Amino acid sequence: MPPTRQLLAAACQYAPSVGDLPGNRLLAERWIRRAAAAGARLVVLPELAASGYTFQSQEEAAACAEGRDGPTVSGWVALCRELDVHLVAGFAEADGDQRFNSAAVVGPTGLLGVYRKAHLFNDEKSFFSPGDSGFLVFDIGHCRLGVLICYDLWFPEAARVLALRGAEVVAVPTNWVANFRSPAVDGRGWTMGDYASVGVATQNQVFVVAADRIGSERGVDFVGCSCAVAPNGAMLAGPAAAADEQLLVVELNLEWVARARQRTPRNHTLEDRRPELYAPLLDGQGR
Amino acid sequence: MPPTRQLLAAACQYAPSVGDLPGNRLLAERWIRRAAAAGARLVVLPELAASGYTFQSQEEAAACAEGRDGPTVSGWVALCRELDVHLVAGFAEADGDQRFNSAAVVGPTGLLGVYRKAHLFNDEKSFFSPGDSGFLVFDIGHCRLGVLICYDLWFPEAARVLALRGAEVVAVPTNWVANFRSPAVDGRGWTMGDYASVGVATQNQVFVVAADRIGSERGVDFVGCSCAVAPNGAMLAGPAAAADEQLLVVELNLEWVARARQRTPRNHTLEDRRPELYAPLLDGQGR
Repeated sequence: MPPTRQLLAAACQYAPSVGDLPGNRLLAERWIRRAAAAGARLVVLPELAASGYTFQSQEEAAACAEGRDGPTVSGWVALCRELDVHLVAGFAEADGDQRFNSAAVVGPTGLLGVYRKAHLFNDEKSFFSPGDSGFLVFDIGHCRLGVLICYDLWFPEAARVLALRGAEVVAVPTNWVANFRSPAVDGRGWTMGDYASVGVATQNQVFVVAADRIGSERGVDFVGCSCAVAPNGAMLAGPAAAADEQLLVVELNLEWVARARQRTPRNHTLEDRRPELYAPLLDGQGR
Repeated sequence: MPPTRQLLAAACQYAPSVGDLPGNRLLAERWIRRAAAAGARLVVLPELAASGYTFQSQEEAAACAEGRDGPTVSGWVALCRELDVHLVAGFAEADGDQRFNSAAVVGPTGLLGVYRKAHLFNDEKSFFSPGDSGFLVFDIGHCRLGVLICYDLWFPEAARVLALRGAEVVAVPTNWVANFRSPAVDGRGWTMGDYASVGVATQNQVFVVAADRIGSERGVDFVGCSCAVAPNGAMLAGPAAAADEQLLVVELNLEWVARARQRTPRNHTLEDRRPELYAPLLDGQGR
């Protein structure tokens, strides 16, 4: 039988607590079980769901970081096997002397891989090394799945590489923050990350499933508004509430990806690229 | 005195007629005068405003194409001098045996340059050569101005090159079409091009001013919904009506560009790029 081209995905919006690894493991388990019970076969948790976000020292960050074989990821592997789901979830990854702001990609067969956030935001630069994994795409049976984390959404190059590598769905663990010189949520109930998600989706003809956190940590406010966007840029589910827990469950019809990419027999949005004109994208730091 | 960082821009949404070059010149003049009378210092007309869109033969396309010194562009140069405005407007450009789907960039001092559409859509491939100008940015005093045309919006590489070259405003002459496997206009009154404009704006922290056409030509329906988007992705003006003529006039505060690019002292969206990870963007045809 051909694999199904329908995928039920879930974005879990809740508030992890900085430094409380055992508590965050329980929280994550509760949300993964809740999403699976709702029928989701792909579950997305927020960025740094395992550790919380606002570290105050190198020591604290180090204490919150775990290896890929640590208790958090090991627990996720066991859960995905038990529940027969795929999971994309953020954790502070320890690797020797380095730490990364990472997302584990886990399936029923185990850990499929780890994406390390390429574009670090603000104080993350004090606590993490820039990601060295490149932009990763995983064949999870239901679809080809790419991963970005939060600020990556504002770098169109990142999502584009995922699309070129075959991504149909981009899962985005995120911690969108308020108070960065822009209204947190506009009159329509959208935050900046929702607009960025629409941009990534429509320009690459991919589904975007973004799971944001809520709540405050040490003076940093998170803005919720998790969302799922269709390959033509239309908001499929969400934006979720700005301040409340919410489970967004959304059916993704994977056929929409090819349909959006080839809207006429003479056009294909990936084949119509003009790479010979794109060399400036590889220039230094861009200015 | 430092140059002003406020710019009043206008998108002119109307219906050129295919093949009627003299009539289209009069129409364009009427709209440019109307925009200038409303105070606009930057005026954007639709794609192929000089010629109309739906050519049926090479001969017709050739008959509708003009050089940069032809009557259409010469008329625009005279108008911009008289009215002290900048103009971005679409025309079918003849250059020897080749034709391009081009946009003239004109100021009070004359023709500043011509952008030739890089990404041709559907039957445009029968009538035009792929643009060879690269992605162009013009210093027009008020701001640094980049130009894209219609389908270019779905190629994030194009807008990104403009941003890296300093663009603060991207003018988009366009002819967004309906009936390409997606609802023309959604429940909120947005068309696909509005979402794509939001994507380009928010990912590059530029203003986007998109002037679409309306009406039908030979069975092809255009969808209006012209818009102006802010550097944080918020819709500033529009989407305009789907079927009616409309002049969108919008004030652009150019300070917003730098503010959106540097939202914290530790972050700059262009300097935070990771070009060493972007090499796949230059690969072949992307698949």
